[in-house]
Amino acid sequence: MSNPNPIGVFDSGIGGLTVVKALRDQLPNETIAYLGDTARVPYGPKSPETVQRYALELAHMLMHKNAKALVVACNTVSSVALPLLTRKFSVPVIGVIEPGARAALQATRIQHVGVIGTRATIRSGAYERALRASNNNLRVSSRACPLLVPLIEEGLLDDDVTDRVILRYVEPLLADGIDTLVLGCTHYPLLSAAIARVLGPEITLVDSAKNCASAVQETLDQQSLRSPSTKCGELRVAFTDSADNFLNVARDALQLNFGETELQPLP
Amino acid sequence: MSNPNPIGVFDSGIGGLTVVKALRDQLPNETIAYLGDTARVPYGPKSPETVQRYALELAHMLMHKNAKALVVACNTVSSVALPLLTRKFSVPVIGVIEPGARAALQATRIQHVGVIGTRATIRSGAYERALRASNNNLRVSSRACPLLVPLIEEGLLDDDVTDRVILRYVEPLLADGIDTLVLGCTHYPLLSAAIARVLGPEITLVDSAKNCASAVQETLDQQSLRSPSTKCGELRVAFTDSADNFLNVARDALQLNFGETELQPLP
Repeated sequence: MSNPNPIGVFDSGIGGLTVVKALRDQLPNETIAYLGDTARVPYGPKSPETVQRYALELAHMLMHKNAKALVVACNTVSSVALPLLTRKFSVPVIGVIEPGARAALQATRIQHVGVIGTRATIRSGAYERALRASNNNLRVSSRACPLLVPLIEEGLLDDDVTDRVILRYVEPLLADGIDTLVLGCTHYPLLSAAIARVLGPEITLVDSAKNCASAVQETLDQQSLRSPSTKCGELRVAFTDSADNFLNVARDALQLNFGETELQPLP
Repeated sequence: MSNPNPIGVFDSGIGGLTVVKALRDQLPNETIAYLGDTARVPYGPKSPETVQRYALELAHMLMHKNAKALVVACNTVSSVALPLLTRKFSVPVIGVIEPGARAALQATRIQHVGVIGTRATIRSGAYERALRASNNNLRVSSRACPLLVPLIEEGLLDDDVTDRVILRYVEPLLADGIDTLVLGCTHYPLLSAAIARVLGPEITLVDSAKNCASAVQETLDQQSLRSPSTKCGELRVAFTDSADNFLNVARDALQLNFGETELQPLP
């Protein structure tokens, strides 16, 4: 049993392409349909009800492309809309928070995990809840890092200024004594080299994008949904409005191969 | 002839408080009603039609408070909605672009002006148009500085990282040979000390907030709308949704005195 249909991946914007990159690496034969809601980015400051409504719209657009699974490549949507999406659609729905939390629980030796993310994600407490659900004795130290997304979108991925900002953000977490750090924002894998450099070899970095891709692979295997193809799958990228220069930054840094992006206006 | 009613000031969020500060300094006897649209910030990425619609809504809300003049403390709104607002309302409407451009034209000795702003403001070309409308031979060098707003909102107003980012942004403008730099974003006056430090004494800094306040004063005088009071006017601050920590940053840095802010939901 197998299924040649695309995996549908969506995000509030462009950052979710880090999840696409991880999926391409782990599941090269799968076709991927990516949809980024650049018309309404960012979702962070919006109310949960609004984010849920937007997530349903994007999921419907991907289901019209016959998605065999929905991947929520966005922390904000993952934190407020997964139960709703799971209820509304018959295909499997995979977010970024559970897989990241699971990987962190496996990685930490001293039961003390750090989480970095946008202000909205940290305020939501979603990672803390997911981590503590499995281990009530776990210590979690979180830190909002509002400058990292703008630095990434400016393309300063390998830059002294960015390293200094990272150091400033992670210093209190290191002082707290974490041994594992979750990158709780789909933009952050673009900085994983810089963050690893600043953290040093003692701290395990948990990349939500990679762990999300592993969870997708597991689900497809369990439900016999893998593509029958042995050829490289296609990658189709669409946005609800024009994409800014960050698309070039992400495409280059991730070495993602896709042609023209499609403009897919909201209904 | 005089008028005790408030001056209505609005912005897409909190940044417009720099204009309020300039108004308080120049017109201490005037009462000010400020309205920040934190529910829908930022306006930069939104279409001109949407920004115009939002601007009309905010202006109506201030007119219900009997505003005797409307001050558009937002570059995005100033660049796309001033003619519409002027047509729709009988009170004077003052934006930030014209006054800034006028001050820059007076300041430049070599007819070469630099403009910094958000990506949306620079892309709109609004300052270039306003500057060139009066002097076709003027050279204008513009630069989008997307990291400055996040750095300001993080409160890094006097910080080595911020200075390095500023230097990187203004270096090409200095190399171009400007002698005057317009701060084309209502957030930037919070960095005017840092920017002046990086630029050095040879470059004249044009603060749009201060020049907007001067234009307001001029207009009130011309139309006999100054407050009859000799006491310090009130400052009332309202937002369409809760304000984040940047409100504390701005209040402290500007030394603005106001009590509880009011939550004024959109209609």
